[in-house]
This record gives sequence, structure tokens and C-alpha cells, in this order.
Amino acid sequence: MKGRVWLAGSGPGDPGLVTLRLADVLKSAEVIVYDRLVSSEILAMAGEKARRIFVGKRTDSHEKSQQEINEILIEEAKKGYQVLRLKGGDPFVFGRGGEELADLLAAGISCEVIPGITSAIAVPEYAGIPVTFRQLSRSFHVFTGHTAEVGVPDFDYEAMARIGGTLIFLMATSNAAQICQGLIKGGMRPEMPSAVLRSALTGDEVKRITTVQDLPALLLREQIGAPAVIVIGEVVSLSSELAWRN
Amino acid sequence: MKGRVWLAGSGPGDPGLVTLRLADVLKSAEVIVYDRLVSSEILAMAGEKARRIFVGKRTDSHEKSQQEINEILIEEAKKGYQVLRLKGGDPFVFGRGGEELADLLAAGISCEVIPGITSAIAVPEYAGIPVTFRQLSRSFHVFTGHTAEVGVPDFDYEAMARIGGTLIFLMATSNAAQICQGLIKGGMRPEMPSAVLRSALTGDEVKRITTVQDLPALLLREQIGAPAVIVIGEVVSLSSELAWRN
Repeated sequence: MKGRVWLAGSGPGDPGLVTLRLADVLKSAEVIVYDRLVSSEILAMAGEKARRIFVGKRTDSHEKSQQEINEILIEEAKKGYQVLRLKGGDPFVFGRGGEELADLLAAGISCEVIPGITSAIAVPEYAGIPVTFRQLSRSFHVFTGHTAEVGVPDFDYEAMARIGGTLIFLMATSNAAQICQGLIKGGMRPEMPSAVLRSALTGDEVKRITTVQDLPALLLREQIGAPAVIVIGEVVSLSSELAWRN
Repeated sequence: MKGRVWLAGSGPGDPGLVTLRLADVLKSAEVIVYDRLVSSEILAMAGEKARRIFVGKRTDSHEKSQQEINEILIEEAKKGYQVLRLKGGDPFVFGRGGEELADLLAAGISCEVIPGITSAIAVPEYAGIPVTFRQLSRSFHVFTGHTAEVGVPDFDYEAMARIGGTLIFLMATSNAAQICQGLIKGGMRPEMPSAVLRSALTGDEVKRITTVQDLPALLLREQIGAPAVIVIGEVVSLSSELAWRN
């Protein structure tokens, strides 16, 4: 059989949110190259004989560079293996899946992309926060709060404050102070409802509701670290009324 | 057994993108209340005895109002049925899932929300367009191009043009001319790469690449109607290089 790569998203951590397609592929993959945000429950769905290659932990000295990851994928596929590249969330939402796909296709490897449920939508959803809601939010906006190259991205805070809708930040806990101050300077009212959320399967479950003004102090006080999702917008005010998991 | 409601998203139409949790619930639901964007392949995964109630076709004279839908859900659950409220995409992305949940919880009904894969991310992904990509897009922005109350939402086009990242519009084909002109007036360069996309399972498959300036004429010329996803941003330029499905 010819080698190939499935580039898949495993969702926010809950095995119930794995897609049927990914569940099938997990069973048949011979090599699984996975990130730190893939939950152990999901990895346990793979066949016992699958070779697992961990490439994702940022603070680990064994961290692989993006170039090294791409090379592993190409090499394993060229050896003829059925390779599953498994990421948390969706592979094209801040997952560099696009870069991996570009290199794989350029190397002549056959690829399939399997979308995953992004934590940007599902983590708020689990906390009773709908990213859109009539009269409160007609759009939502997903940002990364941290990039490898520049740290905090060069945000246009005035445009962000003006655009309306729900602002969602991934990987933003360490830069939250700068982001919240930027939004207020950009014209957002300091009392805008804001939430810090994390689902139980990727760490301790966290659900804290505050304002954009008080969010940085809350993070500092409670030492809430990654991977948390920050949501800023009127819809956060619904979180008690819509707390369906209680 | 006590009645209850699962409020679930079925994804963009491909049965492979149904979650494991939804696949389970489809088998055990006694009543399925579904929208027009739920594919027949997915409905076919339900148990044969499940009673199906169609509530979603906009142009149909049998269309139910949101209030009527909420009443059906509450009534069926109060009768003791296990009710699946099934929507296309994700229930909280322009699906009014939040409103349904609010009414259900207020009526004392036990609810579970099951996130679904949103077409806002997956339909571009299938077309080789990553919503984020290093150096091209560090954020993405999802809008509805049409609302029941006001038609075209009152967009701040200047903020949209300034914010950077990928703009994604659902339900926007009929208002695309106004939106594209607004974006150009707001400062977007007229040559910004733009795409009109639809996945095969929700209608004829569509993948057209153009510019924000020429998009309205293309829609008119080719008579491309709903449900299409419109993507505007630099990442659209990757769509040939990343066309993994060819």
C-alpha cells in the first residue's frame, strides 16, 4: 500500500467530539504524529500497534521544529506508512496544518484533511456561552494571542473594539494584560463581559466570568495558564442562564 | 425515562464529520426535530422508529417560527420523549441554538449541547483554504450575511477591512454585492482574493476563486445561490496549491 498522510483535528479533548472519519482513521493508522493538545483518551482509540511520535510539547527539550515535523511526515509516508498527523482542535485553526499540507503536497504525498471541532467555539459552548446570539452578537472573531515569531500579534485594537460580535482568543493567557488594555484603549467599554475557560480534558476545568478590565488581574490572582480560551463580548453575560451542564 | 433534549450540530453535511457523541444520540433519539441544512445521509443514521419533524425550510409554507420550534421541543420533552434537535453546522453558530437552549432550560428541561463542525471552517478547508496561515492570516472572522430582522446586518466595513485575517460569510450570497462594495469603500483592496464555496453534500459542489471586486458579478453570472460560504482574504490565494482533494 502506498504511504499517505491524514491531517486531522481531534477537537477540544472530549472523545465524544471526535468525528466518525477520524475514529476510523485512528484504527487504521500505522504511525501517529501528535501534538500536546491531543487528549490521552483520544490517543487510546488508536490501534495498539500504531507507532506514536510525540512532536508537540513547547516547553519540552524534545520539541520538534515545524520543519522537522514536516520532514517526519514526508519520510514516514515515503516509507509507505499510513500516517495520521493528529492535532488538537481543527488542523487549520492556528495549527500550522496549512504549512504541513503545503510541504506534503509539494513532496507528492497523497493527503486527506479531516476537520476537527475547534475549541474556539466548543469550549465556550460547554460553558453556556454561544458565540453568536440574536441581538447580542452577529459575528465572532478568533485570534491567537501568541505567535512564535512576534509574541503578541500587532493587533488593530480600535478595529477589534469597533467590529462588534464576540472576540475569542486562543493561546492568550500570557499576553492577556496587553490585549485587554489594548481593547480598552481602542474604545471597548471596560465592563465588557469576559470569560476565561478551559475544558476538563485538557487540564483543570476552568470557568471564570469577569470584565475585560478585570480579566488580567483574575488570571494573575488565580494563576490560570494555558490552554485557556478567552471570550470577550456581550454573549458572556448569558453564561449563567445557559449553564446547561449544571 | 424522563424527557430531555440534545441540541446538536451535524456539521457541514458529510456523514464522516458527525461526532461520535451525535452518532450515539442519533441511534437512541425518539424524536428528531431537524433543519433544512441537515443532510439526508445523516438523517439516515437515525433509528427507524424515530419520529422526524422537519422545521427548517425557509421558502416552505410549512416553515415554523422560532417560537413554534421552541414549543415543539418543550412539548415533546415534557411528554417524556428523548428529543434530538438537529441543526446543520454548529448549533451556536447562527443557528439560534442559544435561544432554544434558553427557553428549554427556563422550562426546566434537561439539555445537552453537542457541538458540530461549522461549515465556516470546514467548507474552506475542503477547498484547500486554511482560515489561518502564518504570514497571511492570524485571525478569522465569521459573519452572517443575512438576518431575519434586518436583512444585511449593519456592518462596520472600515473595521472589517482593517482588522486583517480571513473574513468568512455564511448566508451571504443574496447580499454579496452590498457587502463587497462596503468592504472596498471601507478600505479593502479590490483585488483581495475571494472565494465562493459549497460542499457537495448540501447542493451542487461549488469552488470559484475571484476577487472581492468581481465576486458579485460572478455570483450573478453563475447564479450561485445558498447555502454557499464566501471567504475573503489572502489565504484564498493558497487554494490551488493546497487543493488536496484533486
